[in-house]
Amino acid sequence: MPKKIKIEVNPIGKRFFLQKPTNGLKAITDAGIGIKTVCGGKGTCGKCRIIILNDKNASYNEKEKNILTKDEIKHGIRLACQQIFDRNLTIYIPSSSLSEEQKLCIEGQELDITANPPCNKYFLNLKKATLKDTKPDFTRINESLKKEYKIDAKTIDFKALAQMPLIIRENLWKITATLRENMGKNEIILIEGGNKTKRSYGIAIDLGTTKIAILLIDLLTGKTIDRMGIINPQIRFGEDVMSRLNFAMQNELNLKKIQGVVIESLNSAIGKLCNKNKLTPQEIVEITLVGNTAMYHLFLGLPVKALSISPFLTLTSEAIHLKAREIGINISEGAYLYILPPIAGFVGSDHLAMILATRLYEQKGNCIGIDIGTNTEISLKTNKGIVSVSTASGPAFEGAHIRYGMRAAPGAIEKVSIDSKTYIPTVKTIDDKKPVGICGSGILDSIAELLKTGIIDRRGRFRTNKGCCLCKDSNGNFQYVLWPQLHGKLDYKPKYAGCSDRYISINQKDIVEIQLAKSAIRTGIEVLLENNGIEFGDIDKIIIAGAFGSYIDPRNVINIGMFPKVSLKKIIQVGNAAGVGAKMILVSKKERKLAEEIAQKVRYLELTLHPTFSDYFASSTFFPDPAEII
Amino acid sequence: MPKKIKIEVNPIGKRFFLQKPTNGLKAITDAGIGIKTVCGGKGTCGKCRIIILNDKNASYNEKEKNILTKDEIKHGIRLACQQIFDRNLTIYIPSSSLSEEQKLCIEGQELDITANPPCNKYFLNLKKATLKDTKPDFTRINESLKKEYKIDAKTIDFKALAQMPLIIRENLWKITATLRENMGKNEIILIEGGNKTKRSYGIAIDLGTTKIAILLIDLLTGKTIDRMGIINPQIRFGEDVMSRLNFAMQNELNLKKIQGVVIESLNSAIGKLCNKNKLTPQEIVEITLVGNTAMYHLFLGLPVKALSISPFLTLTSEAIHLKAREIGINISEGAYLYILPPIAGFVGSDHLAMILATRLYEQKGNCIGIDIGTNTEISLKTNKGIVSVSTASGPAFEGAHIRYGMRAAPGAIEKVSIDSKTYIPTVKTIDDKKPVGICGSGILDSIAELLKTGIIDRRGRFRTNKGCCLCKDSNGNFQYVLWPQLHGKLDYKPKYAGCSDRYISINQKDIVEIQLAKSAIRTGIEVLLENNGIEFGDIDKIIIAGAFGSYIDPRNVINIGMFPKVSLKKIIQVGNAAGVGAKMILVSKKERKLAEEIAQKVRYLELTLHPTFSDYFASSTFFPDPAEII
Repeated sequence: MPKKIKIEVNPIGKRFFLQKPTNGLKAITDAGIGIKTVCGGKGTCGKCRIIILNDKNASYNEKEKNILTKDEIKHGIRLACQQIFDRNLTIYIPSSSLSEEQKLCIEGQELDITANPPCNKYFLNLKKATLKDTKPDFTRINESLKKEYKIDAKTIDFKALAQMPLIIRENLWKITATLRENMGKNEIILIEGGNKTKRSYGIAIDLGTTKIAILLIDLLTGKTIDRMGIINPQIRFGEDVMSRLNFAMQNELNLKKIQGVVIESLNSAIGKLCNKNKLTPQEIVEITLVGNTAMYHLFLGLPVKALSISPFLTLTSEAIHLKAREIGINISEGAYLYILPPIAGFVGSDHLAMILATRLYEQKGNCIGIDIGTNTEISLKTNKGIVSVSTASGPAFEGAHIRYGMRAAPGAIEKVSIDSKTYIPTVKTIDDKKPVGICGSGILDSIAELLKTGIIDRRGRFRTNKGCCLCKDSNGNFQYVLWPQLHGKLDYKPKYAGCSDRYISINQKDIVEIQLAKSAIRTGIEVLLENNGIEFGDIDKIIIAGAFGSYIDPRNVINIGMFPKVSLKKIIQVGNAAGVGAKMILVSKKERKLAEEIAQKVRYLELTLHPTFSDYFASSTFFPDPAEII
Repeated sequence: MPKKIKIEVNPIGKRFFLQKPTNGLKAITDAGIGIKTVCGGKGTCGKCRIIILNDKNASYNEKEKNILTKDEIKHGIRLACQQIFDRNLTIYIPSSSLSEEQKLCIEGQELDITANPPCNKYFLNLKKATLKDTKPDFTRINESLKKEYKIDAKTIDFKALAQMPLIIRENLWKITATLRENMGKNEIILIEGGNKTKRSYGIAIDLGTTKIAILLIDLLTGKTIDRMGIINPQIRFGEDVMSRLNFAMQNELNLKKIQGVVIESLNSAIGKLCNKNKLTPQEIVEITLVGNTAMYHLFLGLPVKALSISPFLTLTSEAIHLKAREIGINISEGAYLYILPPIAGFVGSDHLAMILATRLYEQKGNCIGIDIGTNTEISLKTNKGIVSVSTASGPAFEGAHIRYGMRAAPGAIEKVSIDSKTYIPTVKTIDDKKPVGICGSGILDSIAELLKTGIIDRRGRFRTNKGCCLCKDSNGNFQYVLWPQLHGKLDYKPKYAGCSDRYISINQKDIVEIQLAKSAIRTGIEVLLENNGIEFGDIDKIIIAGAFGSYIDPRNVINIGMFPKVSLKKIIQVGNAAGVGAKMILVSKKERKLAEEIAQKVRYLELTLHPTFSDYFASSTFFPDPAEII
């Protein structure tokens, strides 16, 4: 059922983002409910279809005419992002246009590592000051540290210094000092009353374009206490990276805004995690972050022009140590934020974290590590070291550029099988809710099944004689209908009830998008192999990380030709390895050092400069021979 | 002439500070003009005498009754700080109650030192990025630094990082990087376009209780480009240190407020200095600060309770390196603020800076270095090293607790001589303006002359037969009138015209205040000498630093017994040595290191714990034998 919501909105320039409706739709502010946009309001993605009920003098602009079908226009469907709302409106938002809670993969296979964090706590029973002993508080702490623990604290954080005297006196000269190593010297970053040596916490963040995984870690044991997944609220500025970079590039204010929303969300999430686990954000003494290069630039409020325009440069490839307070993160005031360095412009620290967490560099033989996303990072480990590429696979696997595509949220079709005789599909949705769209794994399944059943050929074209589900849409283009399924028969020409949510299909354009995406990935693998003088048969292992990679059927990755044909035994799905890596560099100085060393050692290969790139790309757009399907 | 000002004021709690009059009196906000308070509004100093003209139902509170004479009450004189103004008032502010611009001693004898600052600039002609060379900007800068200058920059400031890409591209890959040493590693703190290696500036600050000296320094030559003296705007919260500490201790907000005003004033002064010298605050790459311990706590917004209550502890005796932006100082965003460590709770870094600037530690023989103020710091250098004491000499030399005392501002009587036959005084005022009060050097002169002419005896008591200037005030107490002088005759009972500003005198209480002050200093010297087994005759040099010390007649310091009787040749007045020291640690890493080493080496002696302290103090209250006066 479409949702009827009365919204009162303000126009923002010429385009309307539905940012601050004051009534009803709490919407995009919490990113859980609201109107979708993938293009960030450019009118190119078509995800924000709505019906304005009291819109009598409708006039459609060119962008709407391009995106909407004749039928849609006839039924008063509009693109929300193209409207200027200067009055109260009652609109229908079809559920397919609603951003829903996403299925977040924030767990990953964890390794057993020894806790050896950069922050350590020491209980001190200070000598009380007297008129005969007027040493400053800091000197007193330092002498006690030296005497009791043989440790020398060179400096004290300015905020910790300010809190120190009261805490010392209120706790009768019994305190706990938290020391943090910085450039080989110890800094006191926190003074607490009493003995707090048994309570030491950190936060590890995997900052993704779509989702943010937040892990609450016990720094003493190295164990994950709790975790939380939230949608990256920057989605309101566009679902894909380029839209956000474009937004941020406009002016200083936009950059501040897009940085602000993610900091705000993180603070809120950290607060909730702490609250739930009976601790305070002030007890968090270190925070680590991994993420793709664009996300970490936006997170720090760094300018993104150099990153957005060829030759696509990151600002630094060094690790960043920063007081978390400098960018407004509400944890212990003296705490550091540690950001793992990226490998190159488009190989972010999330991939580096994945390399660390999967121990890719220690794997025997030849091993591929892959993170599938809008940009897919692939690393090949051989006996010559690790080489990484980044390939623009596009957001098709995240549901964008696919007509009925959506993120992995409840109601998304995630599994598809097609009867080889009747050509009728069976679908499974996330949480078994009524289908509202298709997510990445569903798209992958669909394509593999369409190919297997011969509904499409190796070039991706529909064969017209393949059952009742293959039909024409209102524009006269072929589509394969996944839903609705009425006792084996399909309602070919459903009347719109709000929007096109009564049937979900895959059309020729969708198939082309997948061909381009899988070809980009396959090309990356081919070039990596060629560059290292290795053939398919030499691959010993393929490690797939990330949310999308966790839900897919590895069989279908091979069946559509995204991966070369290898034994299924060689494919391992590890979940959110980036988050695990973020945790490892939080709890262990050794792992942090290791990660920084890997960042220096990994060789980056610019795919587009490789001589055989175009050839591989062209040939990889074809699907494999259906006879070879496993 | 009393000043007639219509003011419109808001009550602040029960006490009125005249903080924000909206009309007429721009007053205490710029601290140059306004109503005096020394006690910070407690009603104990009596400096804020005013007459309220339309005050019909006057009722005096106890504090006013204690401070004001019967005559004053009869004439409607009030203490401004005890009034609650909830209506528009026309008041007379007698000029003696007006804070006027102070004569600021901000210059000092400078030494020739080699510029060797912690910040250095390097011009870099970077290789432009291409698709084949996608190294990050920071890596590019670092490689160029290594290649051209054999220098390794370990980190880059987060703000400099954000500014970097645009500056690089706008200036066609030709930039200047400013490197700053921090804990032995180089950090890039500023990226500028083009070749800016010839422009490198710093600010050195001597933060005094009353005045702030700000020096603009060329870091390349080590020369002082310009200097400015401003009144410490914290004066609105009390002229003496304890009043300000009490104010700051009340709550967090007060501490923020008292910190805020000084930061604001500094920013404004730095802005003016830069503007005048055709540079921008963004070109200031380092700032150093020296000051007494209380001032530097308030400057950093550090809690002051431990400092204010026995055993009077400073928070740290380590140097502080801090990003200047962290406390809101508007200079180059990546610039550091360096605060010299104090020697002990009440021996601030201004005294350490003075020790450095006067090369006290290198002086031959036995040498005393002294900073006279509310707290007087005295250091004795012998062949055994340096020992420092701090003695509570009180604010008498700054004009407080002296009935007609005032700071060294225009109209202050600064020189006094008394005719030994007629007992009639001749006075000289600052800027030769009409007398409005007596400043420190004038008080010192007066006492010495009163003693020399026998008007007071060795115990400080008036001898009643000593001429027409010695007369009784309206309370029946003796006073020696310095002004007015009507052809050798005095108008003994002047009628009030606004307030008691028609004559200026010294009374018995004033003399007692000076006895206590000079005794405190003399005791400090005696204890230091005894502690080191040295006698008067062994003193080779006495170096007097600071504003008060620059204007006094050294002869009178000996004549009233503040100093032991030494040859005048041994006394050297060096002006604002603390400011010079602040500059030295700004332009030279060597001097900075030296100062930190001195801070560790100087031994602090707690005067009040010394067994003979009380004996010395009692005997030092006596004045020397008039026969010995030089």
